[in-house]
Amino acid sequence: MQDKNIPYKIYLKENEMPDKWYNVRADMKNKPAPLLNPGTHEPMTFDELRPVFCDELIRQELNDTDPYIDIPEEIRGFYKMYRPSPLVRAYCLEEKLQTPAKIYYKFEGNNTSGSHKLNSAIAQAYYAKQQGLKGITTETGAGQWGTALSMACSYFDLDCKVYMVKVSYEQKPFRREVMRTYGASVTPSPSDTTAVGRKILEQHPGTTGSLGCAISEAVEAATSQEGYRYVLGSVLNQVLLHQSIIGLETKAALDKYGIVPDVIIGCAGGGSNLGGLIAPFMGQKLRGEQDYEIIAVEPASCPSFTRGKFAYDFCDTGMVCPLAKMYTLGSGFIPSANHAGGLRYHGMSSTLSQLYHDGYMKAVSVEQTSVFQAAEQFARIEGILPAPESSHAIRVAIDEALKCKETGEEKTIVFGLTGTGYFDMVAYEKFHNGEMSDYIPTDADLQVGFDGIPRFPGNEF
Amino acid sequence: MQDKNIPYKIYLKENEMPDKWYNVRADMKNKPAPLLNPGTHEPMTFDELRPVFCDELIRQELNDTDPYIDIPEEIRGFYKMYRPSPLVRAYCLEEKLQTPAKIYYKFEGNNTSGSHKLNSAIAQAYYAKQQGLKGITTETGAGQWGTALSMACSYFDLDCKVYMVKVSYEQKPFRREVMRTYGASVTPSPSDTTAVGRKILEQHPGTTGSLGCAISEAVEAATSQEGYRYVLGSVLNQVLLHQSIIGLETKAALDKYGIVPDVIIGCAGGGSNLGGLIAPFMGQKLRGEQDYEIIAVEPASCPSFTRGKFAYDFCDTGMVCPLAKMYTLGSGFIPSANHAGGLRYHGMSSTLSQLYHDGYMKAVSVEQTSVFQAAEQFARIEGILPAPESSHAIRVAIDEALKCKETGEEKTIVFGLTGTGYFDMVAYEKFHNGEMSDYIPTDADLQVGFDGIPRFPGNEF
Repeated sequence: MQDKNIPYKIYLKENEMPDKWYNVRADMKNKPAPLLNPGTHEPMTFDELRPVFCDELIRQELNDTDPYIDIPEEIRGFYKMYRPSPLVRAYCLEEKLQTPAKIYYKFEGNNTSGSHKLNSAIAQAYYAKQQGLKGITTETGAGQWGTALSMACSYFDLDCKVYMVKVSYEQKPFRREVMRTYGASVTPSPSDTTAVGRKILEQHPGTTGSLGCAISEAVEAATSQEGYRYVLGSVLNQVLLHQSIIGLETKAALDKYGIVPDVIIGCAGGGSNLGGLIAPFMGQKLRGEQDYEIIAVEPASCPSFTRGKFAYDFCDTGMVCPLAKMYTLGSGFIPSANHAGGLRYHGMSSTLSQLYHDGYMKAVSVEQTSVFQAAEQFARIEGILPAPESSHAIRVAIDEALKCKETGEEKTIVFGLTGTGYFDMVAYEKFHNGEMSDYIPTDADLQVGFDGIPRFPGNEF
Repeated sequence: MQDKNIPYKIYLKENEMPDKWYNVRADMKNKPAPLLNPGTHEPMTFDELRPVFCDELIRQELNDTDPYIDIPEEIRGFYKMYRPSPLVRAYCLEEKLQTPAKIYYKFEGNNTSGSHKLNSAIAQAYYAKQQGLKGITTETGAGQWGTALSMACSYFDLDCKVYMVKVSYEQKPFRREVMRTYGASVTPSPSDTTAVGRKILEQHPGTTGSLGCAISEAVEAATSQEGYRYVLGSVLNQVLLHQSIIGLETKAALDKYGIVPDVIIGCAGGGSNLGGLIAPFMGQKLRGEQDYEIIAVEPASCPSFTRGKFAYDFCDTGMVCPLAKMYTLGSGFIPSANHAGGLRYHGMSSTLSQLYHDGYMKAVSVEQTSVFQAAEQFARIEGILPAPESSHAIRVAIDEALKCKETGEEKTIVFGLTGTGYFDMVAYEKFHNGEMSDYIPTDADLQVGFDGIPRFPGNEF
């Protein structure tokens, strides 16, 4: 039953859209630990990062003091093409579940990349263009980030080279064509086009790839070519900064109607969506202004928050990247091949890792068949076919709403619907055909990611 | 350069959304000719249509006098889940083309069916449910209609059987999975599950199918089962009525900003999108209140308006349906197999056919490689990957804007962006690989659709 005061979808007006990103690190007492040089174990400096990243993005990466950073006008112009995204009241879902809970979702799938990834892609492409670069390289898992970056590069006329995790490349043949439509080149990873790719292929001949491998290859491709830099779609502080647009819009939309959420739920792979969605709410929580229950949802088959270790680890499999302090399953971890639900990264944003470690949020892991059940249920009721990644949040949002049904609590639940599943139909087909299974890694499985990888003294695993 | 008074996207508020559909036939002096019984050549009566269509939909089909028809509250509730759709000002495209023209597009792709088809699907499913039916059958070409109908049936818990044109079934494997996600059954057409399908397969063993074939099969499947009716996603008057929501929203959004368009452009297959988009504007034109240039765009390989004949013809290949007076290529016409751009129907809405015949609109045909060029250009500039169908309108909108560049005219152009191309990547791949060609049927080709098919005396071809 519709509350007459609250529309199905809340859209901000153009002049209500944020013109600054919010940098949650500024409000953290315990700042996220700095990236370390893997050779010296000293914090990475601006100059050390310059061969890999664009200058302005390094400044954003290292800036943990300024709470607000202006969004350049060109980026705001691009944002206006597909933003604001709607904050949707899930009236139909509420009715079907017969829950007293009020459920809202911030839908980031209404753009051709199909996800929230475009929010950071356009920012990173912009800064690369400003610096006069020829092009950028990156990795992509499910393909959302690669698609987003190819769109952004096309807009600014930059060359775009994408290393795509092999299992996704094979499961999602049409993703490649979308990226080609936007002029990008796409290589399945690991590949023989880089030294690190050849090494990984030699060590693990049948590997279906991982984000960690693809990162290593993309970094090598960037640093070995004049006029190129590497960009990353998640994990980094700069990405969470750009993605704060999600949370800022969500909060502005809720504020317009005087709504204060009780629970905020987001799926977590590297943390870009979750970090963006919760940013302004976490800011209030850190400043002691308001309390929220914040829940990260991850796959049981790639459980970095719930079963990983909080320590310095490599960001990539090939160990060419800096060390980051984060919840990690070990940079050698590769999820089971039967895992079709995305969120495959072995680590987690340092910022979110610190916040989780300090007790500002909790985390749960869910199994993929229950995730696809939630996905299908949601598709049928709310009319949006969700990405498997997003469906992790749907699973827990439904679970929380059903708890409210038992207790009678009228909680307000907000979750991030990060994207659409149009390119995930192979996974849906498995689910429909009963060919999908769950795999929870054993403790021994989880040792594999760490074994034989040198860290440094005092960094406990 | 953004006009500060006009946002990138105009969204109506929930309370500004139309609560009535507009029935353009009420304002036509020359009404569209009635459907005829193919045996008697007399107008089909309500009772004759009852075995095929839902009762309320027949009433709408036959109603050419009431200008407005209330949208039931349940349908308005569903509309609120994905509507209003945005009316977008194509600032980026204007800048890239360096045109003084002002370009707007009504984007109907922001829902999981990926197109405007959902507007009528939900209405038709609703009336079937109201009548207490078990299920409905239909045909689908590109898959947009089938997906929309499966979503609508899932929402109202109706069984949904879809006959999908074989060439699309093969080119779009993931469409089937989306429909399955919504619980529909999907059969490639022609199939051996119906008598008419078996007959067509016998006559044309290697056929890749056509909408006309699939319609015949779906009608047979509906009329041979208790509790089923047939529904159609285009061509019919009732469909144009439901689709008038597109035009009504467009006009309301333009009116809010005092914008009066000069040119209105829509792609035309069976006419559902075009008829819906232009409805209220055509109403003004028919009543002599305002003039607009209205352009229908069709594929050169399936040119019913520009090269078809205005006469009574069968709506389907199997000749089991009534006769409709329309621009037709002959019910036996099947587009060349190299045609990948949708809009494959041999006929055209009777309403639009009459309006075209009476000079209220014009029509142009375009070749598919130029359509895909426009599609890719649009995707890169405006960030939306369009369906091939929609790209016919994009092609002509760009051409019109370029004419304005030459003449210096500041025309306001509105076009319908009916849907997204996520499931059309096989066609895009052909285009990228240079494997796409154009085929313009010869006059002899166009004779094939008519040959050997009995019509009736006085119905001139």
